[in-house]
Amino acid sequence: MLTLAPTDRRWVEVALADLDAVHRDHLHCERKAAQSALSLVRSYPERADLVEAVSRLAHEETAHVVQVSQLLARRGVTPAYDLGDEYAAALRELVRRPEPARLLDRLLVFALIEGRSAERLALLGESIEDTATASLYRALATAEVRHRDTFLELAAGVSDAWQARLDELAAREGEILATLPIRARIH
Amino acid sequence: MLTLAPTDRRWVEVALADLDAVHRDHLHCERKAAQSALSLVRSYPERADLVEAVSRLAHEETAHVVQVSQLLARRGVTPAYDLGDEYAAALRELVRRPEPARLLDRLLVFALIEGRSAERLALLGESIEDTATASLYRALATAEVRHRDTFLELAAGVSDAWQARLDELAAREGEILATLPIRARIH
Repeated sequence: MLTLAPTDRRWVEVALADLDAVHRDHLHCERKAAQSALSLVRSYPERADLVEAVSRLAHEETAHVVQVSQLLARRGVTPAYDLGDEYAAALRELVRRPEPARLLDRLLVFALIEGRSAERLALLGESIEDTATASLYRALATAEVRHRDTFLELAAGVSDAWQARLDELAAREGEILATLPIRARIH
Repeated sequence: MLTLAPTDRRWVEVALADLDAVHRDHLHCERKAAQSALSLVRSYPERADLVEAVSRLAHEETAHVVQVSQLLARRGVTPAYDLGDEYAAALRELVRRPEPARLLDRLLVFALIEGRSAERLALLGESIEDTATASLYRALATAEVRHRDTFLELAAGVSDAWQARLDELAAREGEILATLPIRARIH
Protein backbone atom coordinates (compact mmCIF):
# COMPACT_ATOMS: atom_id res chain seq x y z
CA MET A 1 0.00 0.00 0.00
CA LEU A 2 1.36 3.35 -1.14
CA THR A 3 0.41 6.69 0.40
CA LEU A 4 1.93 9.83 -1.09
CA ALA A 5 2.05 13.31 0.38
CA PRO A 6 -0.63 15.24 -1.54
CA THR A 7 0.53 17.59 -4.30
CA ASP A 8 0.68 21.27 -3.38
CA ARG A 9 -2.54 22.77 -4.78
CA ARG A 10 -0.54 25.63 -6.30
CA TRP A 11 0.82 23.09 -8.79
CA VAL A 12 -2.62 22.85 -10.42
CA GLU A 13 -2.75 26.64 -10.92
CA VAL A 14 0.75 26.69 -12.40
CA ALA A 15 -0.05 23.73 -14.68
CA LEU A 16 -3.35 25.21 -15.90
CA ALA A 17 -1.59 28.50 -16.67
CA ASP A 18 0.67 26.76 -19.22
CA LEU A 19 -1.03 23.55 -20.27
CA ASP A 20 0.95 23.30 -23.49
CA ALA A 21 4.18 23.08 -21.48
CA VAL A 22 2.58 20.36 -19.35
CA HIS A 23 1.48 18.36 -22.40
CA ARG A 24 4.93 18.69 -23.97
CA ASP A 25 6.56 17.43 -20.78
CA HIS A 26 3.97 14.70 -20.47
CA LEU A 27 4.88 13.29 -23.91
CA HIS A 28 8.39 12.59 -22.64
CA CYS A 29 7.14 11.22 -19.31
CA GLU A 30 5.14 8.58 -21.18
CA ARG A 31 8.11 7.83 -23.45
CA LYS A 32 10.44 7.45 -20.49
CA ALA A 33 7.94 5.24 -18.67
CA ALA A 34 7.93 2.88 -21.68
CA GLN A 35 11.73 2.97 -21.89
CA SER A 36 12.10 2.29 -18.16
CA ALA A 37 9.81 -0.72 -18.40
CA LEU A 38 11.81 -2.08 -21.37
CA SER A 39 15.05 -1.51 -19.44
CA LEU A 40 13.78 -4.06 -16.90
CA VAL A 41 13.39 -6.63 -19.70
CA ARG A 42 17.02 -6.03 -20.58
CA SER A 43 18.22 -6.28 -16.96
CA TYR A 44 16.06 -9.16 -15.68
CA PRO A 45 15.16 -11.43 -18.62
CA GLU A 46 15.39 -14.56 -16.49
CA ARG A 47 12.34 -13.37 -14.52
CA ALA A 48 9.78 -14.44 -17.12
CA ASP A 49 6.75 -13.13 -15.19
CA LEU A 50 8.34 -9.70 -14.86
CA VAL A 51 9.21 -9.68 -18.59
CA GLU A 52 5.63 -10.25 -19.65
CA ALA A 53 4.16 -7.81 -17.09
CA VAL A 54 6.47 -4.92 -17.88
CA SER A 55 6.27 -5.52 -21.65
CA ARG A 56 2.48 -5.17 -21.39
CA LEU A 57 3.00 -2.01 -19.40
CA ALA A 58 5.39 -0.63 -22.05
CA HIS A 59 2.76 -1.47 -24.66
CA GLU A 60 0.25 0.73 -22.82
CA GLU A 61 2.75 3.52 -22.25
CA THR A 62 3.58 3.66 -25.97
CA ALA A 63 -0.15 4.04 -26.67
CA HIS A 64 -0.10 7.00 -24.28
CA VAL A 65 2.81 8.52 -26.23
CA VAL A 66 0.64 8.31 -29.36
CA GLN A 67 -2.35 9.82 -27.52
CA VAL A 68 -0.34 12.74 -26.12
CA SER A 69 1.25 13.39 -29.53
CA GLN A 70 -2.27 13.53 -31.00
CA LEU A 71 -3.38 15.89 -28.22
CA LEU A 72 -0.48 18.21 -29.05
CA ALA A 73 -1.38 18.06 -32.76
CA ARG A 74 -5.05 18.93 -32.00
CA ARG A 75 -3.84 21.95 -30.05
CA GLY A 76 -1.48 22.98 -32.86
CA VAL A 77 1.50 22.57 -30.52
CA THR A 78 4.81 21.14 -31.73
CA PRO A 79 6.48 18.72 -29.30
CA ALA A 80 9.71 20.01 -27.78
CA TYR A 81 12.91 18.59 -26.35
CA ASP A 82 12.80 16.85 -23.02
CA LEU A 83 13.80 19.35 -20.34
CA GLY A 84 14.92 16.52 -18.06
CA ASP A 85 13.35 15.39 -14.83
CA GLU A 86 15.23 16.24 -11.63
CA TYR A 87 12.45 14.50 -9.69
CA ALA A 88 12.99 11.12 -11.35
CA ALA A 89 16.77 11.58 -11.28
CA ALA A 90 16.69 12.23 -7.51
CA LEU A 91 14.56 9.12 -6.99
CA ARG A 92 16.90 7.00 -9.10
CA GLU A 93 19.77 8.02 -6.82
CA LEU A 94 18.01 6.21 -3.97
CA VAL A 95 18.29 2.86 -5.80
CA ARG A 96 20.78 0.60 -3.99
CA ARG A 97 23.43 -1.21 -6.06
CA PRO A 98 23.59 -4.84 -4.85
CA GLU A 99 20.95 -7.27 -6.06
CA PRO A 100 18.20 -8.09 -5.20
CA ALA A 101 17.92 -4.71 -3.39
CA ARG A 102 18.54 -3.00 -6.74
CA LEU A 103 15.60 -4.69 -8.44
CA LEU A 104 13.35 -4.05 -5.43
CA ASP A 105 14.27 -0.36 -5.39
CA ARG A 106 13.87 0.07 -9.15
CA LEU A 107 10.39 -1.44 -8.99
CA LEU A 108 9.42 0.71 -5.98
CA VAL A 109 10.79 3.90 -7.58
CA PHE A 110 8.80 3.16 -10.73
CA ALA A 111 5.72 2.54 -8.55
CA LEU A 112 6.25 5.92 -6.84
CA ILE A 113 6.61 7.73 -10.18
CA GLU A 114 3.49 6.04 -11.54
CA GLY A 115 1.61 6.84 -8.31
CA ARG A 116 2.62 10.50 -8.38
CA SER A 117 1.85 10.76 -12.09
CA ALA A 118 -1.56 9.19 -11.50
CA GLU A 119 -2.34 11.73 -8.76
CA ARG A 120 -1.34 14.68 -10.93
CA LEU A 121 -3.01 13.44 -14.12
CA ALA A 122 -6.20 12.99 -12.07
CA LEU A 123 -5.88 16.57 -10.76
CA LEU A 124 -5.60 17.74 -14.39
CA GLY A 125 -8.55 15.55 -15.33
CA GLU A 126 -10.65 17.33 -12.66
CA SER A 127 -9.44 20.82 -13.52
CA ILE A 128 -8.99 21.13 -17.30
CA GLU A 129 -11.98 22.85 -18.92
CA ASP A 130 -11.77 21.21 -22.36
CA THR A 131 -13.84 18.05 -21.94
CA ALA A 132 -11.92 15.85 -24.42
CA THR A 133 -8.58 16.72 -22.80
CA ALA A 134 -9.96 16.30 -19.27
CA SER A 135 -11.39 12.91 -20.23
CA LEU A 136 -8.04 11.80 -21.70
CA TYR A 137 -6.26 12.79 -18.48
CA ARG A 138 -8.75 10.89 -16.33
CA ALA A 139 -8.25 7.77 -18.47
CA LEU A 140 -4.47 8.09 -18.30
CA ALA A 141 -4.64 8.55 -14.51
CA THR A 142 -6.57 5.28 -14.20
CA ALA A 143 -3.94 3.49 -16.30
CA GLU A 144 -1.10 4.86 -14.17
CA VAL A 145 -2.82 3.55 -11.01
CA ARG A 146 -2.82 0.08 -12.59
CA HIS A 147 0.84 0.45 -13.51
CA ARG A 148 1.68 1.51 -9.94
CA ASP A 149 -0.01 -1.66 -8.72
CA THR A 150 1.82 -3.82 -11.27
CA PHE A 151 5.15 -2.53 -9.96
CA LEU A 152 4.05 -3.05 -6.33
CA GLU A 153 3.01 -6.65 -7.06
CA LEU A 154 6.33 -7.33 -8.76
CA ALA A 155 8.16 -5.75 -5.79
CA ALA A 156 6.21 -7.96 -3.36
CA GLY A 157 7.48 -10.95 -5.36
CA VAL A 158 11.09 -9.84 -4.91
CA SER A 159 11.21 -9.20 -1.16
CA ASP A 160 8.97 -9.63 1.89
CA ALA A 161 10.43 -6.35 3.13
CA TRP A 162 8.94 -4.39 0.23
CA GLN A 163 6.40 -2.44 2.29
CA ALA A 164 8.98 -1.14 4.78
CA ARG A 165 11.27 -0.05 1.94
CA LEU A 166 8.33 1.52 0.10
CA ASP A 167 7.45 3.56 3.20
CA GLU A 168 11.05 4.82 3.37
CA LEU A 169 11.15 5.71 -0.31
CA ALA A 170 7.71 7.34 -0.22
CA ALA A 171 8.89 9.60 2.61
CA ARG A 172 11.93 10.58 0.56
CA GLU A 173 9.73 11.16 -2.49
CA GLY A 174 7.73 13.74 -0.53
CA GLU A 175 10.94 15.47 0.58
CA ILE A 176 12.30 15.54 -2.99
CA LEU A 177 9.10 17.04 -4.34
CA ALA A 178 9.10 19.71 -1.60
CA THR A 179 12.58 20.89 -2.62
CA LEU A 180 11.75 21.26 -6.33
CA PRO A 181 10.21 24.39 -7.85
CA ILE A 182 6.52 24.27 -8.76
CA ARG A 183 6.50 24.20 -12.55
CA ALA A 184 4.24 23.54 -15.51
CA ARG A 185 5.50 19.96 -15.77
CA ILE A 186 4.15 16.65 -14.61
CA HIS A 187 6.79 16.43 -11.84
CA MET B 1 12.81 0.72 -52.70
CA LEU B 2 15.01 -1.63 -50.69
CA THR B 3 16.62 -4.79 -52.07
CA LEU B 4 18.67 -6.91 -49.71
CA ALA B 5 21.14 -9.66 -50.53
CA PRO B 6 19.26 -12.88 -49.74
CA THR B 7 20.10 -14.66 -46.49
CA ASP B 8 22.45 -17.65 -46.78
CA ARG B 9 20.16 -20.70 -46.73
CA ARG B 10 22.44 -22.36 -44.17
CA TRP B 11 21.12 -19.80 -41.67
CA VAL B 12 17.72 -21.50 -41.73
CA GLU B 13 19.28 -24.88 -40.88
CA VAL B 14 21.29 -23.37 -38.04
CA ALA B 15 18.24 -21.51 -36.71
CA LEU B 16 15.97 -24.57 -36.87
CA ALA B 17 18.58 -26.62 -35.02
CA ASP B 18 18.31 -24.33 -31.98
CA LEU B 19 14.99 -22.53 -32.17
CA ASP B 20 14.97 -21.72 -28.46
CA ALA B 21 18.15 -19.68 -28.90
CA VAL B 22 16.51 -17.87 -31.82
CA HIS B 23 13.38 -17.08 -29.81
CA ARG B 24 15.46 -15.84 -26.87
CA ASP B 25 17.44 -13.55 -29.18
CA HIS B 26 14.26 -12.44 -30.91
CA LEU B 27 12.76 -11.22 -27.62
CA HIS B 28 15.60 -8.72 -27.30
CA CYS B 29 15.41 -7.75 -31.00
CA GLU B 30 11.79 -6.70 -30.51
CA ARG B 31 12.67 -4.87 -27.27
CA LYS B 32 15.52 -3.01 -28.97
CA ALA B 33 13.32 -2.13 -31.94
CA ALA B 34 10.85 -0.49 -29.54
CA GLN B 35 13.65 1.30 -27.72
CA SER B 36 15.21 2.52 -30.98
CA ALA B 37 11.88 3.95 -32.11
CA LEU B 38 11.43 5.73 -28.76
CA SER B 39 14.98 7.10 -29.01
CA LEU B 40 13.86 8.97 -32.15
CA VAL B 41 11.06 10.64 -30.13
CA ARG B 42 13.72 11.83 -27.69
CA SER B 43 16.06 13.07 -30.45
CA TYR B 44 13.56 14.62 -32.89
CA PRO B 45 10.49 15.76 -30.91
CA GLU B 46 10.03 18.82 -33.11
CA ARG B 47 9.17 16.53 -36.05
CA ALA B 48 5.59 15.87 -34.95
CA ASP B 49 4.81 13.47 -37.82
CA LEU B 50 7.84 11.36 -37.01
CA VAL B 51 6.90 11.32 -33.31
CA GLU B 52 3.46 9.90 -33.98
CA ALA B 53 4.66 7.38 -36.60
CA VAL B 54 7.49 5.95 -34.53
CA SER B 55 5.42 5.91 -31.34
CA ARG B 56 2.85 3.75 -33.16
CA LEU B 57 5.68 1.54 -34.33
CA ALA B 58 7.02 1.22 -30.75
CA HIS B 59 3.49 0.31 -29.65
CA GLU B 60 3.50 -2.60 -32.12
CA GLU B 61 7.01 -3.69 -31.20
CA THR B 62 6.09 -3.85 -27.51
CA ALA B 63 3.17 -6.11 -28.46
CA HIS B 64 5.72 -8.34 -30.20
CA VAL B 65 7.82 -8.44 -27.02
CA VAL B 66 4.73 -9.72 -25.18
CA GLN B 67 4.04 -12.28 -27.93
CA VAL B 68 7.59 -13.61 -27.96
CA SER B 69 7.65 -13.81 -24.14
CA GLN B 70 4.43 -15.86 -24.34
CA LEU B 71 5.97 -18.10 -27.03
CA LEU B 72 8.95 -18.75 -24.73
CA ALA B 73 6.59 -19.54 -21.83
CA ARG B 74 4.60 -22.00 -24.00
CA ARG B 75 7.85 -23.77 -24.85
CA GLY B 76 8.93 -23.81 -21.20
CA VAL B 77 11.95 -21.70 -22.04
CA THR B 78 13.20 -18.96 -19.70
CA PRO B 79 14.32 -15.75 -21.44
CA ALA B 80 18.05 -15.08 -21.22
CA TYR B 81 20.36 -12.08 -21.28
CA ASP B 82 20.85 -10.23 -24.52
CA LEU B 83 24.01 -11.54 -26.20
CA GLY B 84 24.44 -8.29 -28.08
CA ASP B 85 24.09 -7.69 -31.79
CA GLU B 86 27.31 -7.09 -33.74
CA TYR B 87 25.20 -6.74 -36.88
CA ALA B 88 23.20 -3.77 -35.58
CA ALA B 89 26.31 -2.28 -33.95
CA ALA B 90 28.20 -2.40 -37.28
CA LEU B 91 25.28 -0.74 -39.05
CA ARG B 92 25.06 1.99 -36.41
CA GLU B 93 28.72 2.82 -37.07
CA LEU B 94 27.72 3.85 -40.60
CA VAL B 95 25.51 6.64 -39.26
CA ARG B 96 27.02 10.03 -40.06
CA ARG B 97 27.23 12.66 -37.30
CA PRO B 98 26.05 16.00 -38.73
CA GLU B 99 22.35 16.62 -39.11
CA PRO B 100 20.25 16.05 -41.18
CA ALA B 101 22.50 13.24 -42.50
CA ARG B 102 22.38 11.67 -39.05
CA LEU B 103 18.58 11.45 -38.99
CA LEU B 104 18.51 10.16 -42.57
CA ASP B 105 21.05 7.45 -41.76
CA ARG B 106 19.34 6.42 -38.52
CA LEU B 107 16.04 6.00 -40.35
CA LEU B 108 17.68 4.04 -43.20
CA VAL B 109 19.60 1.79 -40.79
CA PHE B 110 16.36 1.06 -38.92
CA ALA B 111 14.70 0.31 -42.29
CA LEU B 112 17.52 -2.11 -43.16
CA ILE B 113 17.24 -3.90 -39.81
CA GLU B 114 13.45 -4.17 -40.15
CA GLY B 115 13.83 -5.39 -43.74
CA ARG B 116 16.40 -8.04 -42.81
CA SER B 117 14.33 -9.10 -39.79
CA ALA B 118 11.24 -9.38 -41.98
CA GLU B 119 13.10 -11.61 -44.45
CA ARG B 120 14.38 -13.91 -41.73
CA LEU B 121 11.13 -14.08 -39.76
CA ALA B 122 9.40 -15.01 -43.02
CA LEU B 123 11.99 -17.77 -43.60
CA LEU B 124 11.22 -19.08 -40.11
CA GLY B 125 7.50 -18.79 -40.81
CA GLU B 126 7.96 -21.03 -43.88
CA SER B 127 10.24 -23.53 -42.16
CA ILE B 128 9.11 -24.03 -38.55
CA GLU B 129 6.99 -27.18 -38.19
CA ASP B 130 4.87 -26.10 -35.23
CA THR B 131 1.90 -24.37 -36.88
CA ALA B 132 1.21 -21.84 -34.10
CA THR B 133 4.84 -20.71 -34.00
CA ALA B 134 5.10 -20.60 -37.80
CA SER B 135 1.94 -18.52 -37.99
CA LEU B 136 3.26 -16.09 -35.36
CA TYR B 137 6.48 -15.65 -37.35
CA ARG B 138 4.59 -14.99 -40.57
CA ALA B 139 2.49 -12.33 -38.80
CA LEU B 140 5.57 -10.72 -37.29
CA ALA B 141 7.31 -10.71 -40.69
CA THR B 142 4.36 -8.82 -42.20
CA ALA B 143 4.54 -6.25 -39.40
CA GLU B 144 8.28 -5.74 -39.93
CA VAL B 145 7.69 -5.09 -43.64
CA ARG B 146 5.30 -2.30 -42.65
CA HIS B 147 7.84 -0.92 -40.22
CA ARG B 148 10.53 -0.98 -42.91
CA ASP B 149 8.22 1.06 -45.13
CA THR B 150 7.42 3.51 -42.31
CA PHE B 151 11.14 4.22 -41.89
CA LEU B 152 11.62 4.57 -45.66
CA GLU B 153 8.72 7.05 -45.90
CA LEU B 154 10.16 9.07 -43.04
CA ALA B 155 13.60 8.98 -44.71
CA ALA B 156 12.10 10.23 -47.98
CA GLY B 157 10.68 13.18 -46.01
CA VAL B 158 14.15 14.07 -44.72
CA SER B 159 16.17 14.05 -47.95
CA ASP B 160 15.60 13.68 -51.69
CA ALA B 161 18.88 11.74 -51.77
CA TRP B 162 17.46 8.96 -49.57
CA GLN B 163 17.42 6.28 -52.30
CA ALA B 164 21.08 6.73 -53.23
CA ARG B 165 22.12 6.61 -49.58
CA LEU B 166 19.89 3.56 -49.01
CA ASP B 167 21.58 1.74 -51.89
CA GLU B 168 24.99 2.48 -50.34
CA LEU B 169 23.92 1.31 -46.90
CA ALA B 170 22.17 -1.80 -48.28
CA ALA B 171 25.41 -2.81 -50.01
CA ARG B 172 27.30 -2.37 -46.73
CA GLU B 173 24.61 -4.35 -44.91
CA GLY B 174 25.24 -7.32 -47.20
CA GLU B 175 28.99 -7.07 -46.58
CA ILE B 176 28.52 -6.89 -42.80
CA LEU B 177 26.24 -9.92 -42.80
CA ALA B 178 28.75 -11.89 -44.91
CA THR B 179 31.52 -11.30 -42.35
CA LEU B 180 29.48 -12.48 -39.37
CA PRO B 181 29.22 -16.12 -38.29
CA ILE B 182 25.99 -17.96 -39.10
CA ARG B 183 24.32 -18.39 -35.72
CA ALA B 184 21.00 -19.29 -34.15
CA ARG B 185 20.06 -15.64 -33.79
CA ILE B 186 17.89 -13.32 -35.82
CA HIS B 187 20.96 -11.48 -37.20
